Amino acid sequence: MKIYRYKHKDKIHFGVLREENLYQIEGTIFRKFQVKKTKLPISDVTLLPPVTPSKIVAVGANYKSHAKEMGRPLPEEPLIFLKPPSSVVGPNDIIVYPKMSKRVDFEGELALVIKKRAHLLEEMDNAEEYILGYTCFNDVTARDLQLKDGQFTRAKSFDTFAAVGPCIATDVEPDHLRLKTFVNGKLRQSSGLKNLIFSVPFLVKFISRIMTLEPGDVLTTGTPAGVGPVSPGDRVDIQIEGIGTLSNTVMKIKRS
Amino acid sequence: MKIYRYKHKDKIHFGVLREENLYQIEGTIFRKFQVKKTKLPISDVTLLPPVTPSKIVAVGANYKSHAKEMGRPLPEEPLIFLKPPSSVVGPNDIIVYPKMSKRVDFEGELALVIKKRAHLLEEMDNAEEYILGYTCFNDVTARDLQLKDGQFTRAKSFDTFAAVGPCIATDVEPDHLRLKTFVNGKLRQSSGLKNLIFSVPFLVKFISRIMTLEPGDVLTTGTPAGVGPVSPGDRVDIQIEGIGTLSNTVMKIKRS
Repeated sequence: MKIYRYKHKDKIHFGVLREENLYQIEGTIFRKFQVKKTKLPISDVTLLPPVTPSKIVAVGANYKSHAKEMGRPLPEEPLIFLKPPSSVVGPNDIIVYPKMSKRVDFEGELALVIKKRAHLLEEMDNAEEYILGYTCFNDVTARDLQLKDGQFTRAKSFDTFAAVGPCIATDVEPDHLRLKTFVNGKLRQSSGLKNLIFSVPFLVKFISRIMTLEPGDVLTTGTPAGVGPVSPGDRVDIQIEGIGTLSNTVMKIKRS
Repeated sequence: MKIYRYKHKDKIHFGVLREENLYQIEGTIFRKFQVKKTKLPISDVTLLPPVTPSKIVAVGANYKSHAKEMGRPLPEEPLIFLKPPSSVVGPNDIIVYPKMSKRVDFEGELALVIKKRAHLLEEMDNAEEYILGYTCFNDVTARDLQLKDGQFTRAKSFDTFAAVGPCIATDVEPDHLRLKTFVNGKLRQSSGLKNLIFSVPFLVKFISRIMTLEPGDVLTTGTPAGVGPVSPGDRVDIQIEGIGTLSNTVMKIKRS
């Protein structure tokens, strides 16, 4: 099942995609819900980020290939950082190139959406029960500020620096999927998701022992090799089989 | 004015303190509100964190004295990091000593609460307009994990690691205030708040150029010299003249 969040006639809905039509959801996506018969062609709605997380937890250097290209040793434990809720944008939204940076990079990632509160999970717990589904994520990074600060926060927290979508796919098995990132149609990243150093279940359990995860929270699992700069005007497509393609265009904008 | 958030008979209210009584607020604390005549002795209610922030932005090494004790150079620009909303606790709440750490430190700080959305503020903007008031903050830190990870996130994001309160004081002028931290009644930190390397208005403007600040968001301004470890059973009091005292006790607890 692919769950979308969208706006139609100024109202926000969740819906399930079936053959180019969105069928409206009644109830919350985090528990049992009903799919109504009301349908709309997906081309008639404005897609929104599929979730509004209370927090986004990201993992650094979680592919051997990316750790190598950044000159970092392989981590013994996941290296986590946070992106603020204010950084979230959805499918087809603009990624704003900030004035403060001269080097902004794309980072294509697999992200997961938390289904129910996860707190102090133990080895024997089944992480799958806490996962609603998977989505594409662009962990946009001001690389110059990341290097300058040492801490990742400023570099990764600008408004629009967390592109999420296009949907939450509930029936996919990440180990069998491949992530591809394209800039202006040119392939820049391509990796099997089974190449994660720390697996999705491991990450969910590890992070739940630090901070309580709430329904709708997003964990993004790190980027493979191939990251690189974008310029205003560039379009970035992050594609994961079984989920779809997240497309965003980079722009400079003035103060609104 | 001192604004408290509290629970009474299972309902949550905001109220204004006048001579040991809380007068209930009608409306939102972020715009004009009415203070009702209904009052309750403060001793009859359960105090809560005075805000529920969508994000907490913290600043590292913002006192010369603390930068020196940590062996860090003085920053050219504020070094920011995030603490997740899940880490917030209020006055008299327990700070949980996590299993993952063997060295947990207190860090007494002055924090401010955002009043209205702040986005791309410029030099000439008046930061004061965006500040509702001030509160005490304990930026609890697992020092061993901070050193191990390099990134601050894990060390500073454990549940209960952001103690906030007891109230939001709206009529104070931080430059004239003094912060004191006591562990089990013994003075451990004492600093005038005019010793901040980056002032409160500077921080609000700087951070607004990275991420949009929302009403209720918390910015915490860094800790002075004197940080040190706490052990289960210890009580930490953070006192700022004109605001009050934030008291929390450290405990080890098992999985709930």
